[in-house]
Amino acid sequence: MREPTNQLWFAQAVEHRGEVLVDHAHCEKKAARMALQLINAYPNNPRLVRAMTQLAREELLHFQQVLDLLQQRGLQLQSLSASNYAAPLHASLEKKEPQRCANLLICGALIEARSCERFAGLAAAFGATDPGLARYYSFLVKAESRHQHIYMELAAGMVPPAELTQQANRLARLESELVNAPAAALRMHSGPLVA
Amino acid sequence: MREPTNQLWFAQAVEHRGEVLVDHAHCEKKAARMALQLINAYPNNPRLVRAMTQLAREELLHFQQVLDLLQQRGLQLQSLSASNYAAPLHASLEKKEPQRCANLLICGALIEARSCERFAGLAAAFGATDPGLARYYSFLVKAESRHQHIYMELAAGMVPPAELTQQANRLARLESELVNAPAAALRMHSGPLVA
Repeated sequence: MREPTNQLWFAQAVEHRGEVLVDHAHCEKKAARMALQLINAYPNNPRLVRAMTQLAREELLHFQQVLDLLQQRGLQLQSLSASNYAAPLHASLEKKEPQRCANLLICGALIEARSCERFAGLAAAFGATDPGLARYYSFLVKAESRHQHIYMELAAGMVPPAELTQQANRLARLESELVNAPAAALRMHSGPLVA
Repeated sequence: MREPTNQLWFAQAVEHRGEVLVDHAHCEKKAARMALQLINAYPNNPRLVRAMTQLAREELLHFQQVLDLLQQRGLQLQSLSASNYAAPLHASLEKKEPQRCANLLICGALIEARSCERFAGLAAAFGATDPGLARYYSFLVKAESRHQHIYMELAAGMVPPAELTQQANRLARLESELVNAPAAALRMHSGPLVA
């Protein structure tokens, strides 16, 4: 990860916890969909297919768990505007193979790493006021950290080490810019709200 | 189900068991993707969201199991041409809501019902020559039969009974035509090969 999350985001996430939790549910579902898209795009890569299937199953379990948390809090899943994050990352991917596949996997790793950092921060931020939420975020830190390494190991199998490093640096720079840019709505992968 | 599978299909599936098994893997993955697409399209329907999440998890488990069967047989997942089935069904859906949602759910039920019928036939066809495959298809008959009812119960919540019956009949007629039409390649949801 290039740059840590702007601390203001955590303070705002505590204030907007309901909206952030709904967005978190969407993130788990999107993570599962991304894994299935990778399987669809690269069916001939058995390691990728196996790893992404297992990952998608875990993300769907997390999705169910976040739905439970929403229900316990009288909240409900609903459509939310997307942050300016996944789309620009996707637009910046290399076009030719196997670079494109490596780029997709690096993006997966960067997104998981960011989630992980934010879950850890949220666990700390909610520790006193919402221990149930804090415990759940702590639990997710471990899971998503493992996912990040799975993505990077798969990416390392696609391109030579020097190219991997160069692409990972390029994408990490962009990811950090996007995730800390002031945002109109607070999301799991947005910057803090515009002042 | 409007019309049973042409028996010629089962004889050909035994002959082309490898290709049918690879296609079966894709079907399990597509079923998971379809469930996630329904969640994406109808996030405000909590019953649908819950049911489709659980269903997607089960389909992904089946996908893993079919990958194991492929591996045991020295086969590997690979891209296959699609049969002329899901696309024309999808093109025939009602455009306005809630009819569209009901139509999508009816299609889900019809596809699961067809899979179920074919798995039962395959279990019988493989009984003597490939008991491992026969056992697995028997196991799936129960799972997919349950899925079919989940889809129909959700569809029943979307439109009045008379409309549901009329739409289910219309789509069942189309499904039967498509799935029994002579095909250029044998698929889990195709007709028998062109003579």
